[in-house]
Amino acid sequence: MTDVLLLHPGEMGSSVGNALVFKGHGAYWISEGRSESTRLRARKASMFSEETLKAGLAKVEIVISVCPPEFAVEVADQVLEHKFKGIYCDANAVAPSTAQLIAEKFGNAYVDGGIIGPPLYRHGTTRLYVSGANAVEIVNLFAGSALDTRLVEGDVVSASALKMCYAAYTKGSSAMLLAIRSLADAHGITSTLKNEWELSQPRLWERSEGSGPGTTRKAWRFAPEMREIAKTFENSGLPSGFHDAASDVYQRMAILKDSEPVSTRKIAKLLRED
Amino acid sequence: MTDVLLLHPGEMGSSVGNALVFKGHGAYWISEGRSESTRLRARKASMFSEETLKAGLAKVEIVISVCPPEFAVEVADQVLEHKFKGIYCDANAVAPSTAQLIAEKFGNAYVDGGIIGPPLYRHGTTRLYVSGANAVEIVNLFAGSALDTRLVEGDVVSASALKMCYAAYTKGSSAMLLAIRSLADAHGITSTLKNEWELSQPRLWERSEGSGPGTTRKAWRFAPEMREIAKTFENSGLPSGFHDAASDVYQRMAILKDSEPVSTRKIAKLLRED
Repeated sequence: MTDVLLLHPGEMGSSVGNALVFKGHGAYWISEGRSESTRLRARKASMFSEETLKAGLAKVEIVISVCPPEFAVEVADQVLEHKFKGIYCDANAVAPSTAQLIAEKFGNAYVDGGIIGPPLYRHGTTRLYVSGANAVEIVNLFAGSALDTRLVEGDVVSASALKMCYAAYTKGSSAMLLAIRSLADAHGITSTLKNEWELSQPRLWERSEGSGPGTTRKAWRFAPEMREIAKTFENSGLPSGFHDAASDVYQRMAILKDSEPVSTRKIAKLLRED
Repeated sequence: MTDVLLLHPGEMGSSVGNALVFKGHGAYWISEGRSESTRLRARKASMFSEETLKAGLAKVEIVISVCPPEFAVEVADQVLEHKFKGIYCDANAVAPSTAQLIAEKFGNAYVDGGIIGPPLYRHGTTRLYVSGANAVEIVNLFAGSALDTRLVEGDVVSASALKMCYAAYTKGSSAMLLAIRSLADAHGITSTLKNEWELSQPRLWERSEGSGPGTTRKAWRFAPEMREIAKTFENSGLPSGFHDAASDVYQRMAILKDSEPVSTRKIAKLLRED
């Protein structure tokens, strides 16, 4: 059995911690500077608490970073300051170039990760893809758990590349749909578009209706994820505009972080307000 | 029965002409400066040929413009030079602001149009949406024909707004998918992405496989259409980047205009070549 530190357990991270606990591993989190809601989530997930990063790192063999993408490098640097000697897995939605920066700090101890699917409340919904020299350590750690963990062939940052490609479509096309609903609203043709979509684009209207409520509370963290994706396209000589625009859409919704889910009709209006 | 001039019948325009002929109307085209393939298409569609625009305009009560979007204003201006007094319907994929420019030239004789669906080889596949003071004239013209013609409520350029919103998703998301396939190829993770899509995004892999061959020969004209859509977003204070990027993707494919359909795998590589 292995002791693992999760940095920093939000909804996804605490569900990953809970999957480890269920398999008999020890899952730790660091309480210093974290919110009451994080404390509640970690407790519900049966995770062990340590006050400081130093104390937490002293207990574990593996660190898994699951945090908003804009903090990925900072979290890695904090762990490095403590001269941590175990495996460091960055499972965040970051560009391969960002993952590469972190990989270079940790050398062979670095495992790249990408999570696809919702927080793990049951088996089979969610996959952790991993790459790098010691990726098999992470596969073994989660073997038989609710988190389906799979090796990605290729270079050390392949898992991040996969995550970027996957979210590029799901979150990118949702942002595009929201922008289109806003455009239709601006021109007063929403009901005609609805009729045409229902005729020729099966399920697209329903999908657009779901996009508003479904992204209301996540848009604040989708915005930086879209910027990582835009960077990934740019680094391969491909147009970054799809995801720069998606980031812009989600940024305009970021104020809804603590709101109840908001209808697409209302978000269509919000997107055009200054 | 009404005589109508189509400017300038490509695959879509000649199928619209043929739908008119089937209802007993006269459908004209102008041969001056047009290619042999246009001549063959127009003949197959049982359209009447006139050599010059002046001669064609003298024969008809209605002009319908169906041409690549970047020529829409030029075609309108040529018709105006001849002081044409009938109905002028622009059925092109242009921004409402472009349609507005044309509308102002023709006043109440202007009907705005937007075609959704493939060229008309059978009933029920394709709709012509129309708006403007005399839009009902166009509805009456096509009544009972293979082209399902519908009024759009709203202002004079509502039909163009609808077309922009519709194509924004269909062609915009196809371009995004092609760019994602290219990104996955750049990172060597295409087969892993395929497996994940097949697991969690029903039909997305197949759609991406179809996008390359399906757009090979049309990309050259999708590129300017995407720029019209980008302009439409920008005019409403919404991010234009989705469709600037889509235009970029299709522009990189424009060299394939006369090619046989090309696989998505090959287009994925082409998109990264300079």
